Amino acid sequence: MKIIHTADWHLGKMLNKVDLIEHQQTMLEQFIHAMEEERPDVIVIAGDIYDKVNPSNVALNLFEQTIERLNQDGDVPIVIISGNHDSKEKLSFAKYWMEKQNIHIKTTYEDVFSPVEIKGMKFFCMPYFSPHYMRSKEHDVESHYDVYRVLVDALNQEELINDDHVNFCVGHLFVQGGMESESEKDIQQGNLELVHASLFKDFDQVLLGHLHSPFSLEDQRFQHIHYSGSLLKYSFDEEKQPKGYRVISIDNDGNTSSKFKGLQDPFAMKVYRGSIFDILNKEVEFDPDTYLKFELTEVKEVNNAYYKLRNMYPNLLEIKPVLEQSDLITEQGEVNIERSDEDIVKQFYEFVEGESFTELQQQYVFEKIRGIEDDETNSLNH
Amino acid sequence: MKIIHTADWHLGKMLNKVDLIEHQQTMLEQFIHAMEEERPDVIVIAGDIYDKVNPSNVALNLFEQTIERLNQDGDVPIVIISGNHDSKEKLSFAKYWMEKQNIHIKTTYEDVFSPVEIKGMKFFCMPYFSPHYMRSKEHDVESHYDVYRVLVDALNQEELINDDHVNFCVGHLFVQGGMESESEKDIQQGNLELVHASLFKDFDQVLLGHLHSPFSLEDQRFQHIHYSGSLLKYSFDEEKQPKGYRVISIDNDGNTSSKFKGLQDPFAMKVYRGSIFDILNKEVEFDPDTYLKFELTEVKEVNNAYYKLRNMYPNLLEIKPVLEQSDLITEQGEVNIERSDEDIVKQFYEFVEGESFTELQQQYVFEKIRGIEDDETNSLNH
Repeated sequence: MKIIHTADWHLGKMLNKVDLIEHQQTMLEQFIHAMEEERPDVIVIAGDIYDKVNPSNVALNLFEQTIERLNQDGDVPIVIISGNHDSKEKLSFAKYWMEKQNIHIKTTYEDVFSPVEIKGMKFFCMPYFSPHYMRSKEHDVESHYDVYRVLVDALNQEELINDDHVNFCVGHLFVQGGMESESEKDIQQGNLELVHASLFKDFDQVLLGHLHSPFSLEDQRFQHIHYSGSLLKYSFDEEKQPKGYRVISIDNDGNTSSKFKGLQDPFAMKVYRGSIFDILNKEVEFDPDTYLKFELTEVKEVNNAYYKLRNMYPNLLEIKPVLEQSDLITEQGEVNIERSDEDIVKQFYEFVEGESFTELQQQYVFEKIRGIEDDETNSLNH
Repeated sequence: MKIIHTADWHLGKMLNKVDLIEHQQTMLEQFIHAMEEERPDVIVIAGDIYDKVNPSNVALNLFEQTIERLNQDGDVPIVIISGNHDSKEKLSFAKYWMEKQNIHIKTTYEDVFSPVEIKGMKFFCMPYFSPHYMRSKEHDVESHYDVYRVLVDALNQEELINDDHVNFCVGHLFVQGGMESESEKDIQQGNLELVHASLFKDFDQVLLGHLHSPFSLEDQRFQHIHYSGSLLKYSFDEEKQPKGYRVISIDNDGNTSSKFKGLQDPFAMKVYRGSIFDILNKEVEFDPDTYLKFELTEVKEVNNAYYKLRNMYPNLLEIKPVLEQSDLITEQGEVNIERSDEDIVKQFYEFVEGESFTELQQQYVFEKIRGIEDDETNSLNH
């Protein structure tokens, strides 16, 4: 049995005003051809199909055409869940008719309890649910850990996960492993989004979306839990990540293996860290098709660096000053590694504009930052 | 053979901030039950399914559920075209899968030339096309008349309309009949949207959407052309229009008849024309579930009439002062029936606010109106 696992397509995503739809199309074209070779028994797409709750017509069309071709007139079953970027309603529109062609779109709480059954396998679908959504289903939950604990408990209580089938979980969440010494409660308090891997011990295979690296969870104890990674690189943090899909194989004796297969990534990006003078003097060369982020030292003496550099490199998407150890010595001679948020804004402004920050500007930024912090505190408490 | 004709559902429409979705749901529920009785061979929905190019999730859901129930798991074929309120892309999303269940969604130029064939009938679908859209298909057209002339000519040239089948046209446009003395060119120049009924002479039956009255075209010479009317009353002009659907019957000898069947309209509206004092003194009574429009005489002496009346009648949606003959005598003693746009705004402002219009306000309104007129002129020329 061969199961293909992909996720986080983010159709319609813009990265710093660059529209990625053509790169997405190129990548999906490769994926479709790969599937013609693989001839899988099921394809699983684990959430964040679209980048926005209100996808553009171009993004909708790309989804529709891709799914139609992958499905091969009903021959290849497809299981799709919604992620945190998807609108449950928009993604599941027309699911009634797609279901008849073996395309299963799962977006709701109720869907968790009616697994998709394909060739002796059961796919328990856990779309992204906010704690708020779960409260509307009368579950008193605070964190994402609570959400998935409630779901797994309910499945166990109804004895739905059992040995009659191979039990798959398809989810879209931030699973954390490898932290044996910390209690689950600690994890929950540290990051409300984290869910500990041990929660999914009863499933034979767990296919996840949300984290963009295909190797997000590399832990010997949780070899049955996988991230496929995203379709493309969607931030400069992903510069060195391979992009592709996973193949889960189950042999006749029930042995399972998972393998990541890379595709040719059409969206090249590079983070250059170094001296701004080397760039201005053209001592470094960049591929004209590669999108760039500069992390620059020695920037204090250059005015309007950003605009100058954008003119030289139209593919420059992001710029960040890198403060060296000597910049961090305060007037009192102390090392001030932990800059305040206000200082970061002030230094960035002075770097970009080449002018010093006024009292009035400082006050404005200070108030804004306090406002954001208050909002965050409030949203954590609700 | 029995063909059901409906159109102009405008799902998601708001009328003066009143959300009509529940009334639409009630009416569609009746329609679904009526179809269970009628047991039609085809249902035709002639455009303006949604009210907006970006329909709300609630509107999308209502469409999806209604079509699913009407279609009865593929047993009842449905033909749907896009109207001027629909987005071609949004309406046709998932049409590939719906087609397999006998639901045919037609939105493009190319669709015109592949009629839907059902039980010896051909449905030629002419969705709403703007002249701009047709120019993108390399047809040099200016008016709606040009658009449909091009389409009918092309169908004739390819000899697609012929006697092998009963030829239906499904369209969404403003057809005008009964003007024998005027040339088609006059009609075209007078109103760019009008299309003369004689253009459709080669079709056996023409089922239209766009105009909201089921009796929009009552002309002995064009008995084969029908409007079904809209699902609900969508403006106070429609106060007295019945709402329902049409039944087109074709007997074994090929004789055709069309009959309008009314449904129980859940959205009651009333236009009251009379003295404002009768209302303020409660000498007129209104049903509390009926939405109201007041056309009022003697309003000059009442300040803030609108807000007063809204407090008394929460269902009051529109108010309009009615100027009597004596109001229209200018200082020079001449009858000034044709008020300028500026005068209309000025008089309405004074009526609502009970204050006179300042010079500054007059100037502002004057400029705005000129701006709108310029925009209109420009858009007609492109």
